[in-house]
Amino acid sequence: MKEPALRHFCEQVFVKLGVPPGDARVTTDVLVLADLRGIESHGVARLPRYVTGIKEGFMKPVDRSRIVRETKATALLDAELSLGQVVGKKGMDLAIKKAKETAVGIVSVRNSNHYGIAGYYALLALEHDLIGMSMTNAAPLVVPTFGRTSILGTNPIAIAVPGGREEPFVLDMATSVVPRGKLEVLDRAGKPMPLGWAVDETGKGSTDPTKVLGALAKRLGGGLLPLGGEGEAFSGHKGYGLALMVDVLSGVLSGAATGLQVYADEKVPNVGHFFLALDPAAFRPLEEFTRDMDRLARELKASPKAEGLSRIYVAGEKSAARTERHRKEGIPLSPKVVEQMKKIGGELGVPGPA
Amino acid sequence: MKEPALRHFCEQVFVKLGVPPGDARVTTDVLVLADLRGIESHGVARLPRYVTGIKEGFMKPVDRSRIVRETKATALLDAELSLGQVVGKKGMDLAIKKAKETAVGIVSVRNSNHYGIAGYYALLALEHDLIGMSMTNAAPLVVPTFGRTSILGTNPIAIAVPGGREEPFVLDMATSVVPRGKLEVLDRAGKPMPLGWAVDETGKGSTDPTKVLGALAKRLGGGLLPLGGEGEAFSGHKGYGLALMVDVLSGVLSGAATGLQVYADEKVPNVGHFFLALDPAAFRPLEEFTRDMDRLARELKASPKAEGLSRIYVAGEKSAARTERHRKEGIPLSPKVVEQMKKIGGELGVPGPA
Repeated sequence: MKEPALRHFCEQVFVKLGVPPGDARVTTDVLVLADLRGIESHGVARLPRYVTGIKEGFMKPVDRSRIVRETKATALLDAELSLGQVVGKKGMDLAIKKAKETAVGIVSVRNSNHYGIAGYYALLALEHDLIGMSMTNAAPLVVPTFGRTSILGTNPIAIAVPGGREEPFVLDMATSVVPRGKLEVLDRAGKPMPLGWAVDETGKGSTDPTKVLGALAKRLGGGLLPLGGEGEAFSGHKGYGLALMVDVLSGVLSGAATGLQVYADEKVPNVGHFFLALDPAAFRPLEEFTRDMDRLARELKASPKAEGLSRIYVAGEKSAARTERHRKEGIPLSPKVVEQMKKIGGELGVPGPA
Repeated sequence: MKEPALRHFCEQVFVKLGVPPGDARVTTDVLVLADLRGIESHGVARLPRYVTGIKEGFMKPVDRSRIVRETKATALLDAELSLGQVVGKKGMDLAIKKAKETAVGIVSVRNSNHYGIAGYYALLALEHDLIGMSMTNAAPLVVPTFGRTSILGTNPIAIAVPGGREEPFVLDMATSVVPRGKLEVLDRAGKPMPLGWAVDETGKGSTDPTKVLGALAKRLGGGLLPLGGEGEAFSGHKGYGLALMVDVLSGVLSGAATGLQVYADEKVPNVGHFFLALDPAAFRPLEEFTRDMDRLARELKASPKAEGLSRIYVAGEKSAARTERHRKEGIPLSPKVVEQMKKIGGELGVPGPA
C-alpha cells in the first residue's frame, strides 16, 4: 500500500475516535514509520489495539498529560492514560528543548500506554543535530536468567546519532534475543525455533514456538530469553541486566509500573518511558563530531567481510534502505492486516484504505 | 592476600613511580575493587601494565587533565595522557557535582588511558544517592557482525542505581559475549571454547582459543563476538550496536580515538570515557524511588526458578557477595600475579607484598 493512502486512513480513524487532528497525525506517524522501517509488529498491524484502547477508555483520545516536576535539564510527565505516541513525542520534544538550552534534557513519563517503536522518538533528535535516546518498559514477556516466569518486557533501547554524509547511527533494539513476533511467524508456519530464543514453563530452552506462546498467553510460565540467551554461558545475564536497566529508567524513575505490574491491569497499563537528548556541540564542534561519526561508520563498513558475506552494516542502514524502498514501492501489508483495517474502516465509517 | 596489605603495596608502587599519594590511592582503589568484585583481569594482575606505562612516559604520573569545555550540565576533559583512573574519578566526580546542582551531569574524556573497571565510576554516584553511568572504549578485540577483523573494543557499559534495603542494582558488562580473559583461561588449560564466543580469521565461529588468541595477537583477523554471538540469528547485531554506541559516546563525543585508532599508537592510546550522573530526586522523592527499586529486585528474586536452579540474581549481587568474602578471607591471587608483584617491588625498592 502507498504510504500517503495508509497515512490518510489511519489519521481518519483516529480523528473519528475523537483524537484531535494534530495528535492523530503524530500517532499515525509512529505507526507508519514502523512499517516503513520494516518493524511490522509495531506498525498498522497494531491499529486494532489502539481502536480498542480508545473505545474502552484506557487510552484517552485527547491528551491529558501534565508536567509533574521540572528542572532546567529534567522533567517528569504524568501521561494520565493519554496515547503513548502523543505523550511520547511531547516528552521527547521537551527533552530536545532542554538540550538546546542546557546541553542535556532527560524526560521521564509515567502512566502512559504502549508508545510504538522506541526509535521514532530517538530519531526526532536528529532534526535538531542532537543525540536522542528513548526507552520504554512493556508487558512481561522476558524471563530473568535462571528463572522460568516472564517478569520483564522486551524493553527496547533506541539511540540516534547525527552523521554527516553517511546514514546516521540509529540503534533500535529490544533487549530480548528476539521479539515475540518471530515466534508467531514460526508458529503459523508450523516450524521449530532455534534453541536459545525462549524457554518453556520449566525454564529450559525450547524449540516449540506453539508451546511457548500458549504457555505465555495463559501465564503458565516460560517466555523469551534476554539478549545473550539461556544461563550465563553466552552472557544471557547481560541482556537480563539491560532489560532491567530499561525498567529502572522507564518505570522506577518515573513512578510507573515495573516488572509484573506493567499491564497487570489492562485498563491501567501504567507504562513508563525515558527520553534523553544530548547536544554534541557542547563537547566539540558539530562538524568535527559528524566527520568522526562518518569515519567510524566507513571504517566498520570497509573492513574485511566474513567468508561468504559481502556487506557489513551500521545500525540504521537497513531500516533507512527499507524506508526508501517502501516509500517508492509501497508498504507490504499482509492480507490479515488489510482485512483488519477494512473492518475498522467499516465500523467507523472511514472509507478505504485505498 | 589481605586487602590492606595489597592496597598498601600498590599505593607505594605508584608513589615510587612519582604518582602523588592521593592519586596513588585512587588508582589503587580501582585496581583492588576489581579484585574484590571478582574481575581479576582488571585487578592487580594489570599492575605491570601501569608500571610500564608510567616508565615509558605514555601514562603521566602527575595528573595533567584539564577542562576544555563546560556547561552547567556537561564538560569535556582532555586527560593529556594522565592515568585513566585518576582522570576517570575526576570526570565522574565532576558529573556528580553537576547532577547535584543541575539534576544531570555528563562528562566526556579524551586522550586518556585504560581506566580499569567501568563499574568503579558508576558506583561513586551511589554515595550521593545518584544514578551513575560509565562507559569507555578500548583496544580493538570485537568483530562487527558479518566481519572478520576486530574493530571495536569490549566497550563496557556500567550503571549503578541506589537501592533501599536490597543491594543496589549494579550492572558492569562488556558488550562482547565474553572478555578475552575467558579465552586465555581455556587456552592455558588446553581446552576448547563454546562455539559462539569468537571467530577465526575467516570470520567463522571457532572453538579453538589458542588459534583465535594467536591470530588476534598478530592482528591477522578474527576476534571476540559481540553480545548475541555470530550473525543475526541470536541478535549479534544488537551487541555490535551496543559496542558501537559505547564507542560513539566515549570516543566520538569526546574527540578521542575510535575503532581501530584506539591504541593504534601504543604511546598515545587516546582512550575516551563517558560519565553520567542523574538525580532520581529530580523526578520523585528518593525514598519512593528506592522503595520501588527494592520491590522490583525482590519480585525478580522471588520469582519461580528454572528447574534445577535455586536462585535468581539481580546484577551486582554476586559482586557484592564476593567483595564481602574477599574482605574477610583475603583476595585470591594467582602465583603468577604474586610473582609479578614481587618483581615490581624488587625493582622499585618496595617491600612486600606481605
